[in-house]
Amino acid sequence: MGIVVQKYGGSSLSDADAIKRVARRITEAKKAGNDVVVAVSAMGDSTDELLDLAAQVSPLPPARELDMLLTAGERISMALVAMAISDLGFTARSFTGSQAGVITDSVHGKAKIIDVTPGRIRGAIDEGHIVIVAGFQGVSQATKEITTLGRGGTDTTAVALAAALEADVCEIYTDVDGVFTADPRIVPSARKLDTVTYEEMLELAASGAKVLHLRSVEYARRHNIPIHVRSSFSTLEGTTVTGSINDPAREGSMEAPIIAGVAHDRSEAKITVVGVPDKVGEAAAIFTALADAQINIDMIVQNVSAAATNLTDISFTLPHSDGQTAMTTLHGLKNKVGFESLLYDEKIGKISLIGAGMRSHPGISAKFFTAMAEAGVNIGMISTSEIRISVIVEEDDVDAAVQAAHTAFDLDADEVEAVVYGGTGR
Amino acid sequence: MGIVVQKYGGSSLSDADAIKRVARRITEAKKAGNDVVVAVSAMGDSTDELLDLAAQVSPLPPARELDMLLTAGERISMALVAMAISDLGFTARSFTGSQAGVITDSVHGKAKIIDVTPGRIRGAIDEGHIVIVAGFQGVSQATKEITTLGRGGTDTTAVALAAALEADVCEIYTDVDGVFTADPRIVPSARKLDTVTYEEMLELAASGAKVLHLRSVEYARRHNIPIHVRSSFSTLEGTTVTGSINDPAREGSMEAPIIAGVAHDRSEAKITVVGVPDKVGEAAAIFTALADAQINIDMIVQNVSAAATNLTDISFTLPHSDGQTAMTTLHGLKNKVGFESLLYDEKIGKISLIGAGMRSHPGISAKFFTAMAEAGVNIGMISTSEIRISVIVEEDDVDAAVQAAHTAFDLDADEVEAVVYGGTGR
Repeated sequence: MGIVVQKYGGSSLSDADAIKRVARRITEAKKAGNDVVVAVSAMGDSTDELLDLAAQVSPLPPARELDMLLTAGERISMALVAMAISDLGFTARSFTGSQAGVITDSVHGKAKIIDVTPGRIRGAIDEGHIVIVAGFQGVSQATKEITTLGRGGTDTTAVALAAALEADVCEIYTDVDGVFTADPRIVPSARKLDTVTYEEMLELAASGAKVLHLRSVEYARRHNIPIHVRSSFSTLEGTTVTGSINDPAREGSMEAPIIAGVAHDRSEAKITVVGVPDKVGEAAAIFTALADAQINIDMIVQNVSAAATNLTDISFTLPHSDGQTAMTTLHGLKNKVGFESLLYDEKIGKISLIGAGMRSHPGISAKFFTAMAEAGVNIGMISTSEIRISVIVEEDDVDAAVQAAHTAFDLDADEVEAVVYGGTGR
Repeated sequence: MGIVVQKYGGSSLSDADAIKRVARRITEAKKAGNDVVVAVSAMGDSTDELLDLAAQVSPLPPARELDMLLTAGERISMALVAMAISDLGFTARSFTGSQAGVITDSVHGKAKIIDVTPGRIRGAIDEGHIVIVAGFQGVSQATKEITTLGRGGTDTTAVALAAALEADVCEIYTDVDGVFTADPRIVPSARKLDTVTYEEMLELAASGAKVLHLRSVEYARRHNIPIHVRSSFSTLEGTTVTGSINDPAREGSMEAPIIAGVAHDRSEAKITVVGVPDKVGEAAAIFTALADAQINIDMIVQNVSAAATNLTDISFTLPHSDGQTAMTTLHGLKNKVGFESLLYDEKIGKISLIGAGMRSHPGISAKFFTAMAEAGVNIGMISTSEIRISVIVEEDDVDAAVQAAHTAFDLDADEVEAVVYGGTGR
């Protein structure tokens, strides 16, 4: 018998009826002859409710206690799922992250999994039980403190359990049918992908596709665990994330698509540092200061300096949420670096074209930029990786840009099959 | 520096403001120079809400999973209390029952504490932290499963921590000012007791006084930990439970009151087995069957059998909640035992007079029964212990009986000082 690991997010566990539906789904996998291990998130909005309570009690709660508080959410949902399974005539055992052997570092609120020691889980499996594990949480190796894994934590828990148990597959149940060639809310003709490689999925996730969190995909790639993303509201096959773009078998395949999909992201802002003296060390001073302020920079563009003035402009993008801190940090550098002024723009969007095929097919960039131009979309910044081209456009142009790129690369389906595309919570 | 253990129940932790008030109270004890360890219950009605959720998911949830679910309640309150303390400029560390070393047997839902291994708590105290412990919960010695202690569990947690840490005192904060000579809702002139012995408190608790749970008092007596019951809504001194009725120093004291108080209990029902053949083994058959059905019997009275028929009646009291099961069990015995019929009466109440002094003062029973008679109260059953006399009366007579006994033994205060008398939750 093989082991199947499943993950259900908060939107699949919104109330008692949803929990019973999930329980039926879990027992079907068991009936099909599998050993089943399930990672669950907290029910619906319960994490937000706990955060509200914390905010009422303390404006800046200690991270250790916040983790202690939030981990109650998964504890509640895992016990309820186990009860619902028992009501269907199967036996289930729920385990906290700590009991399940999810060992992390000591960074409260965004701990990283160091190891999984699944002794108790294996024992429960061997006794014939379905195992339910609290997602999003673990216990720190050094201090034995309860930790949480941060955003996407339950996806990561599920993948880590699958790796430790050498599971056949990690099924991520969510409220969409899988990974699409674009957000179906923008492109109604977007197609669901049957498979996508780890590298492409990583680029999609990093470029704004919300269906899977980056960390869980990284973990799955490292341990070579196939992830099957599918809907908890239907029995349709979803998207399987598996295989590498560097797999020799894949290289020869005629079927591998050139472009996997078009992602977009409205969560970034752009800062331009105007009139920076074009000399050694100026850019380093700017980005060192931003790094010290814990700000994540995405794209960076530096113009060629005007010969007359020997001044240049440096633009970069960063999350909206870091905008205020970044501007304050940069203002503090004005005299030291000697730039002229700062511009801040939140009205931007990023469009990314992702596909392993672009390595072997010349002209992808040209086709992409031509499509943007024909759609009347002005490109502000460009960055590329081996299998991705991203452009920054005006926020109002995002929908048109996504649609244009999707059509230009023949990604449109013959029929509309999409459902609403949503977030995955954690 | 001494160690003070405090306990706050759900009614003292009903919302964010209540939690902040409790946090201030805790920090005052720390400021006064004590090391402080606090056991907390779940907030307000949150345990009932979790039970509701469980009932929606499964009509008969497995006990293991119910414990996993319910322990989330204390986890939430302990983290919030720790946050609120941190907001006042002190540091606090919260610990689950398991982390705090509360070791129990494996009986889910009503586990007994076997041992407390407070290594982590001591470590946190030594580092200067205020320690918050989830009440009502522990971890089983044999199976390492999460357990709950059942009713009165957080009181017991607090006393067990006090014993393990050799604390100076265990303060139980509740919504009443202390232990009273009678329920002030019935007897407005009831007085708060300054002190009461363990034995008297045990009898009061067993006889219906809800302010402290029996198990916690037993634990405190065994380990000789003084319990200070007081209000979390005022700074008044409450009642200290300490000392034995067998303490030689106490025997000589003129100040020891003869009667500690009058308790009442409306939670019992009475079953009468009519026309039982008066021969050896009949009573044993009846009560063995009830014991096998897990029914707790309180008082038992057997009439002298009528010479003509050689038949007797056996009456006993038991909790309302066991009434249905008991009647079903007894009906099943009818042919075997050969009794005539069964009578069931829920409209009863129990009045108990409790006091160490009744051992050395003759005539207490006579005075009690006389007071009942003068108040027009008919006595149905009588039982006594060394320091207690209990009578069963009609439910409508309970208030008059309590008031009459209270007055007869000169327990009335000169002035009314009572607040509303309530339950303690768990």
